[in-house]
Parts: sequence; structure tokens; C-alpha cells
Amino acid sequence: MATHRFRPTRYHNTIGTAEPCLRIADGDTIITDTIDASGLDAHEVQVWERPNPMTGPFFVEGAEPGDTLAVRIERLTPSRATGWTYSPLAFTVLDPSAIPDRPANERAVWDIDPAAGTVRLQNPPPGLEGFAPPIQPMIGCFGVAPARGQAISTASSAQNGGNMDYRLFAPGTTVWLPVSVPGALFYLGDGHACQGDGEIVGTGIETSFEMEVTLSVVKRTIIWPRGETADDIFAVGNARPLDQALQHATTEMLRWLNEDYGLDARAASHLMGQVVRYDVGNVFNPAYTVACRIAKRWLTRR
Amino acid sequence: MATHRFRPTRYHNTIGTAEPCLRIADGDTIITDTIDASGLDAHEVQVWERPNPMTGPFFVEGAEPGDTLAVRIERLTPSRATGWTYSPLAFTVLDPSAIPDRPANERAVWDIDPAAGTVRLQNPPPGLEGFAPPIQPMIGCFGVAPARGQAISTASSAQNGGNMDYRLFAPGTTVWLPVSVPGALFYLGDGHACQGDGEIVGTGIETSFEMEVTLSVVKRTIIWPRGETADDIFAVGNARPLDQALQHATTEMLRWLNEDYGLDARAASHLMGQVVRYDVGNVFNPAYTVACRIAKRWLTRR
Amino acid sequence: MATHRFRPTRYHNTIGTAEPCLRIADGDTIITDTIDASGLDAHEVQVWERPNPMTGPFFVEGAEPGDTLAVRIERLTPSRATGWTYSPLAFTVLDPSAIPDRPANERAVWDIDPAAGTVRLQNPPPGLEGFAPPIQPMIGCFGVAPARGQAISTASSAQNGGNMDYRLFAPGTTVWLPVSVPGALFYLGDGHACQGDGEIVGTGIETSFEMEVTLSVVKRTIIWPRGETADDIFAVGNARPLDQALQHATTEMLRWLNEDYGLDARAASHLMGQVVRYDVGNVFNPAYTVACRIAKRWLTRR
Amino acid sequence: MATHRFRPTRYHNTIGTAEPCLRIADGDTIITDTIDASGLDAHEVQVWERPNPMTGPFFVEGAEPGDTLAVRIERLTPSRATGWTYSPLAFTVLDPSAIPDRPANERAVWDIDPAAGTVRLQNPPPGLEGFAPPIQPMIGCFGVAPARGQAISTASSAQNGGNMDYRLFAPGTTVWLPVSVPGALFYLGDGHACQGDGEIVGTGIETSFEMEVTLSVVKRTIIWPRGETADDIFAVGNARPLDQALQHATTEMLRWLNEDYGLDARAASHLMGQVVRYDVGNVFNPAYTVACRIAKRWLTRR
Repeated sequence: MATHRFRPTRYHNTIGTAEPCLRIADGDTIITDTIDASGLDAHEVQVWERPNPMTGPFFVEGAEPGDTLAVRIERLTPSRATGWTYSPLAFTVLDPSAIPDRPANERAVWDIDPAAGTVRLQNPPPGLEGFAPPIQPMIGCFGVAPARGQAISTASSAQNGGNMDYRLFAPGTTVWLPVSVPGALFYLGDGHACQGDGEIVGTGIETSFEMEVTLSVVKRTIIWPRGETADDIFAVGNARPLDQALQHATTEMLRWLNEDYGLDARAASHLMGQVVRYDVGNVFNPAYTVACRIAKRWLTRR
Repeated sequence: MATHRFRPTRYHNTIGTAEPCLRIADGDTIITDTIDASGLDAHEVQVWERPNPMTGPFFVEGAEPGDTLAVRIERLTPSRATGWTYSPLAFTVLDPSAIPDRPANERAVWDIDPAAGTVRLQNPPPGLEGFAPPIQPMIGCFGVAPARGQAISTASSAQNGGNMDYRLFAPGTTVWLPVSVPGALFYLGDGHACQGDGEIVGTGIETSFEMEVTLSVVKRTIIWPRGETADDIFAVGNARPLDQALQHATTEMLRWLNEDYGLDARAASHLMGQVVRYDVGNVFNPAYTVACRIAKRWLTRR
Repeated sequence: MATHRFRPTRYHNTIGTAEPCLRIADGDTIITDTIDASGLDAHEVQVWERPNPMTGPFFVEGAEPGDTLAVRIERLTPSRATGWTYSPLAFTVLDPSAIPDRPANERAVWDIDPAAGTVRLQNPPPGLEGFAPPIQPMIGCFGVAPARGQAISTASSAQNGGNMDYRLFAPGTTVWLPVSVPGALFYLGDGHACQGDGEIVGTGIETSFEMEVTLSVVKRTIIWPRGETADDIFAVGNARPLDQALQHATTEMLRWLNEDYGLDARAASHLMGQVVRYDVGNVFNPAYTVACRIAKRWLTRR
Repeated sequence: MATHRFRPTRYHNTIGTAEPCLRIADGDTIITDTIDASGLDAHEVQVWERPNPMTGPFFVEGAEPGDTLAVRIERLTPSRATGWTYSPLAFTVLDPSAIPDRPANERAVWDIDPAAGTVRLQNPPPGLEGFAPPIQPMIGCFGVAPARGQAISTASSAQNGGNMDYRLFAPGTTVWLPVSVPGALFYLGDGHACQGDGEIVGTGIETSFEMEVTLSVVKRTIIWPRGETADDIFAVGNARPLDQALQHATTEMLRWLNEDYGLDARAASHLMGQVVRYDVGNVFNPAYTVACRIAKRWLTRR
């Protein structure tokens, strides 16, 4: 179980079958750098172009099509003192016939203060002078190479992961992704220091990171991304409209409850009907993201 | 501020402009009975037909079109010892091309145990023998008469409220509804002893209730329902697909932040972008329900 | 088979269970007046309020819940020399992030010239000086009372018909509507002198009409509106998003092909797969409208 | 203006930036072979895997990012005597809660009879013994390489074209595609001998073809595909749900009317409001396709 410190020199704007940047063994840990969604590195130097330049791909020995890659998110440490967001709410979340005065789409800069544990706008508009939500680091975009030679824009997402912008892709979470190519070919980047549901300003607080993840191969097949936190399990669907993302997430959860928790469709529906939670990852990108989440206290692994 | 104990003898399957069952003063409290979604009363006698028979309408003196009706949910007490749910997950939440074995659509009966504070299936399928989530009473369907003579089925919802099935319509919450007719004409019913997000089996745990609400007139205009709990404020949109429900909810929240919290569109988007939460009311009825929610700790009332 | 000349003195902004304006026998013909979508009559006098004031309801003797009402559209004659439209394309049909300069929402007036058989803008903008499409009269909104006491806004539509804005609801077409109340309670109005697909400016050319229809009771049950022209049969779905409207229309057509044309699901899918046509009624109202259409030359009635 | 007879030896399941199979001059014509959607060639030999193997890419000298590639469809000749379809209607076009008996998903084989000009099921089910619609050849999937290194599955579509399954992509039509890479990199395949709207059985009549197209570079920029037939111009949007595809198509048409026909937004909306037509390409693939179409008799090129 080695730990690799990898310093990228090139990035990727699609998640596809590209030349691996590093080959690692099943179970190894990677510590690496990611640049922000617009290509700014830890020194705020523009080192790559938009959108969402990815570090990777990492080739995991032993991963084969039909397997699952487990990604344990060990640590996400912002590598600079500021991040940025856009100003207006996205068109996708507003009633088009009733949009109030729409602010210009300017970048706003936020100070990231690890000592205080907060983020804070550099030039807050009236009413937000004291607004300092907690740093809650998350990975906006990560995934494995999709099947059949596709190279999917890092602006979008699919069964293989991608730009999902879900708050629970955070330190302590383990994520499972369906492998479609030998070595899995794992990419990551687009870190956010904070983000509400839906990524509704089109960004989280975008900044560069040092990210630490552990990658393991599981000899089973899943269809959509799955995850586990200290408290919950969740399944993720990526599609438009939100309804379809929710359908994929719910159907994947139903499969999971059957496979690992011994619940047939009737038992699973009785349980989900009373305790399921739905979270919105993003409602901004070409594919929206919905997570179907269940608290582990209701579940007994078979 | 009188308290009225009202015992209904008839019910309504639409929310419209009907003869008031009771006239009350602005600020009065009502304690009344509601029957379950299928018309069963506290004695499990079928006293009305589906769907979601409503108690009401209550005429609130002083409420005029353009006003807002504040509904404080004081107490929701199940009035019998059992409730029921359907068996399978709704078609609306499953990938139609990948539906696993679909159980028959049978009613399941749950024991409601106020002493233990839990609900429990009478004949649990394998794996759910110990499943006993907490009683979390909520109002599935309530609202005021819509504009222009409409009578909207209690299966659906709109700007005037209706069948929203949102978990936070629970004791302690205050809800605001836009008034379209003199007296507001308030209806309520369809209580659930428990329900996960989305009402994804097509029901909560449906039972009869004694409900206590306080109704007050506010001389301001809103467009979509709003609510406030101990911790949060939220705005609600009702439409299909989920995307549109979310748009209505977000746009209403933007108006609210501007009107009451002094945030212009740019300030509101900076705040919402980092701390907004989206909840799914139902994703089963003709109109779906999404709530846009913000913790009050981020807000300062102007 | 009597013909009734009915002159309305009041109108309706919902389609529901109201007092009949006239009782007719099964098979009778009605000649009546309709006012335009904004309530202007043949003299351009505002006689009722928006939206889409309906003439009716007509009680058809013998019609019972579960029956079908056949509506033969005999004649639609504009009763004044002008109609009006809105200026800009609806928000529902434009990419919200890429909307070009949006014109103000003004009314434009069109001359209706029965002699020339054309409509023509009174003050055409540059480039439309010669634009004179043919008069193609159609009924924008018509339907029968829905079930369970609902009163549905004439801005919207459902299984009972309503504001569908489909070009083939034109002279010579027979339409079938599912009856939910005794007497069917038929309403009509919102005539258009012309309209493209989708009613994408939010109106057709709105004007008052003399309409002639023949109403007959059929002792069979349908779920969604159906229609027949000289060349085609079609089934109509009303819902949002368009996908769902299309699903309802297609499913109703599948039922129809089975019931009347002896095609099982496999045969129907082989036929529809090669020759089906989809038309968009409106993509503007709260419920959108899609028609699933098949040329009669491919069909043999059983 | 040379004509190239190209015989492919390999195919592509994505539309991306791959090694050109042939370089041609601006204005040249290509005659080439395409295999069917499942990889069967003119001899019904499986020579490539699913989905929709493409012939290409063709590099067109002089095409640069920001240009437009004009594709004139000269001729589509089926190269074998049979084609195939699936049996059941797609889940995407049926009401999930009301699906009639669903036939098994078997392949059906159709005879393609150039002499008679018809297609005909080899083993027609009862009621379809005489069903022989006309051969109406069309290209199901074609496009140019997308931007930023994407490789998009030939199951899907986007701004660069792809699997659109629109009946008017037929002989005599000129199609314009937005160029994102040097040489445009044009692909084509997935020919259909016939297909109704929506590709609602998941296929047209899939067969191999000899296709003849002429490719020319236009020094202008478009965003979505455009086309012109003898009678009409049309713009195409590809997205889910149908609403969004329709929005892209309508917005592109608005741009086109402004650029080439001198109509500002107000004039264009007056014209489109009365004469626009919407066609459904496919409502089956990951991205649906809608065309916004206008008859040329209403237009005067500036």
C-alpha cells in the first residue's frame, strides 16, 4: 500500500482513454495537486484551459472492465488562500418569466482562512459583511474513463462520474465508480472550498488543492456511482432533467439494497418510502446530478 | 384569539371556492379532525372518497385577495393506531428501462406507537423485522382557494399549496400561502405519520389526525408558499418536471431575501450559492414539489 | 338532429361543473358565438375577463361518465375583421442563456381578410411587408367537465381537453373527449384565425368567432382526447414536459390501434415505428400538448 | 470538385478527433459505404461493433474551427435487400404507469424492394399483412468532431450533430454543421431505409448503404446544425428533455432569420408564431432531437 506524491505537468478537459500519468497498485494512495476550474494553479498562474482541467489519469493495476474502483477521499487541502465564484444565479434555477434584476456575471474572490475554518468574500455586498460559511472542501469533478472510446467533457457527467458537484464528495467519503477500461484511468480536479446544493451560481468556491485519495479495485459490477460517509450510503444519477437523474439514482439504490442488504424490491420500497433522502449535486451542468441517500442506521449489511 | 374545535361532517376532493365550514377571526386557532388519503376516519370507517379528502374550507375574516395567510402548525396528533402505505416504488422515480422485479401494489399496514415514538410494519418482509423509524407527523395536503374559480384536485398542487407532501410541513413550522379569494378558504388533510423524501411509494404512512393550526392574515403579497422552522426558511415550487418546481422555489426565495433580508440579487446569489439546500417534497403527484431552504443563522432580518 | 343557435351572455374561465347554458339532444348541432382569449367580442367590446373565456357549458342528453363525446367541428367563421397576437417568442421556447434582444410584449393587430383568405399584420416590421399567411381557423380551447369536481383553468389542459392550441382542431375534424359528468358539459372558445406549431408567441391570431359543432354521445371509454381528419387519426396528450405529453399521446394511440384496428402491441409498434408523426400543439401553457398522428391510409378499421 | 470513391476498412463508435480516413478538397464529393447500426455490412457480415459504427472521419481542406461545413446529401442507396427494426415501442415514449402488454425486444426483418419503392416486414403480424410504406432513405447519425478533445458516443448527439435520426436528413437536403477542429473531421453512417418520427422503436429500418455527399466549407459560424430542403429551412437542437431540444432549435432559427433574412427578433417572432413547424427527430437516444422548420415561401433571403 504505497503512497505516491504526484506533481502533474499536464491536464485534461475530457475524461477518456488517455496516456496514464502514473501507474499504481491496487490499494495505493495518491497525493497530488489539482488546479481550479479555470486552470489557475496554487500560485494563481493560468497553467491550463477551461473547463475543469483534470489531474490524471491514474492507471490502477488489476482494474478491468466490469470491476468497480473504490476511491477513498482521505484529504482535500486548499493550496492557496483565495477562491472564486460567479455572481448571478444560473438560468437553470430561475423561472425564466420572472427573473429579478440579474447581476453581471463577474468573478467574486473569497478568502479561504484555514485558521478560522471559513470562507469570506473579499468585497461583500451590503448585507453580507459578516457572511463567513465554513470551509467544506469537496471534489467537483472526478471519474474513470468511460466505455467504447468516449471522451466526455469535464463540464458534464455520466455513469463514469465526472462533473457532479455533490457536497458529500468530501474527506471521509468512499466513492465507487464503474470501471470500463483496463486500469480504470482515474481523473480528479475541480476542487471547491465550499458549495451549496445545486452549484447554482455555476461554481463552488473554486480553488487549487492538494488532494489525497486511496484507490482500490473491487471485483463487482455497478452501473452508477455509489458512495458512503460515516452516516449514510448514497447512489448518484447524472442526467437531464432532474427527474431522470433521480430515477437513475433511485434505481441504483434499489439494486444496492438488494445486492448488499438482502432487501427485495418490496422490502426496499418500504424502507426507502419512509427514510430516503434526495440531494441535488448540480443543477447547472449539461447533466444534472441527484443523490439518493439512506442513513446507515436503517441498514444491516448481509 | 379564540380556539375552535371543529368536527367535520363533509370533505372536499378539490381545493376551490366552496361554502365555508366555519368562519374564524384573524389569529384564531382551529383544532379539527382529518381523515386519511383514502377517506378512512379515526375508526377506520370509510367516510369519504379519494383522493385526499380535505377538512374545510375555513373562512378567515379579513383575508383578501393579494394578502398572505400564515398557518402555524401547532400540533399533529394521529387519531388511530395504524396507518397504511403502498408497496412498490412509484414509476416516476425508477428508470423505466431498468426496473427490477416490481412488487404488486398492495396496501401495507403500519402500527403507530406514540409511547415508543415509532412506526412499524405489521408484517415486515425479510430484512425489515426491526425497522421502526420515528413518528414524524406532517401535513400532506393543505392550501387556500386558488384564483379565478379554479377547483384544483387534492391529488395536485399549485401556487395556492395543495398536495405537496413535504416533511417540513410539521409541528412548529409556520407556512405562508398566497390568498386569492375573500376569507382565504383554508383546507387541510392527508396527514402522514412518517414519510421519506419524494413520497416515492405514492404515500406516506397515511392515517387520520387531530390537527391544530393557527391562521393569521398578513397584509403582503407572495407568489409561492413559504415556510419557517426553528432553523430554516424555505420557499416551495410545485410543477413538473422537478427542474421547474426548483425554479419556482428558487425565484421565490430570491424575492424573499430581497424583500425581508435586504439582499439584492447579487448578494442573494452569493449567499445562496454557498449555503442553499434543496429538498424534494413529492416526485409522485401531477405537480412535483421542491423546497429551496436556507438556514436562518446566515440571515439577518432587515 | 336539431340545430341550436345559442347566443351566450356569460362566459367561464374554468372548465368544470357549472350550470348548463343549454341542454341539447345527442346528435344536435350548435351554432354559437365565442369571444377572443382576452374577452373581446365581435364588436371588440370587452365583455369578459381573461383567460380564454369559454362559451358553455352545453349539456348533452344521454352522456354519462365513462362515455365519450364526439365533437364534429363543422365551421369556424371569424366574426370580426381583426385579431391580435403578442410580440416576442415565449420564454418556454428559447434557450434562457442565449436569448437575443427580446422585443417588448406588445399586442400586434392583424387584418383578417376572408376574401383574400389571408391574415396580415397592420403595421408589419421590416421584412414582413408582404407576409400574408392563409386563414386557418382552429379552436384553441375546448373540452368537457373533468372528474371529481375539478374546475380547470382555461389557461391549462388535461385529459378532458382544454387549452390545447392544436392546428388540427379545425373545420372537418371530429374530436372525441372522455366524459366524466352527466351531460358531458361541453365548453368552447379561444378561436384562432391562424397559428403556427407550439403557439410560440403565446397566442394564435386571437379573434371572436361563430362556431358550429355537432355533439354526439359514444358509448365507449377513452382516456385522452382523440381526433380524426380527412387524412389522419391522432391522439393528444397534455402535460409538462413535452416528453410526458408525448408519452400520453403515444400510449393512447397504442390503445386505439388495439381497440379499433385490431393491432396488438407488437403490430402497432411496427406500424408506428415507420409512419407515426408527432405534432406540437402548444409549448406555452401550464400543460403542453403533443399529438401522435397516423395517416389513415396505413390503417384498416376492424 | 473531385469525386472520391472511398471503401472503409475500419469504423468509429464515437465522433471525435481521430486519424482521417481520407483528405479531400473543399467542394469535393464522397461516395462511400456505411454499415448498419449494429455493424452489419452489405453482405450482412458483422464487421464492427455497436452502436452506430461510423465511416470516416473525412478531413476537408480549409475547414477551421469557427467555420461551418455544408453537407449536401446527394444520394442514399441501400446496399442490401433487407433491414431490421426492434419490436416494442421505447420506454421513453410510453406512459410508465399505463404500458399495455409489452412485446419482447426481438429483431424484425424487412424486405427493401427498390423496384416497388417499398419496405415490407418478412413475417408481418396480423393486421400488417399489406403494410408496405415507401422507402425513404435518411442518415441516422452524422457529424463533425466536437471541440476540446471530446469523443461523443454515436448513440448520442450534440451541437456537432451525431445520432439525430431526423427524417429530413435525406437526399436533396443540405445540412450545415459547426466546425470545431481543423479539417472538420466528418463522419457518417446509421442509414435508415424508412423511419417514423421519433425513432420510437429505437431504430429505423437499419441497413447498409452507399452514400454520396458533397462537403464544402463556409466561412461563417453557427451554433447548432441547420438544414435546407427544396421547400423548407430548419434548425436542429439536441438535448433532453424535448423542451430543451426545442429551445435550442428555436433559438438557432431566430439567429438564422436575423443573419440571413434580415428579420429582427420582433419580426421573426411574428413570422414564426404563424408558420413555424416542429418535427421530432428522435425521442429515444440520450439526447433527443427537435427541428424548428419554416417553409421557404415565407422567407426572402437578404
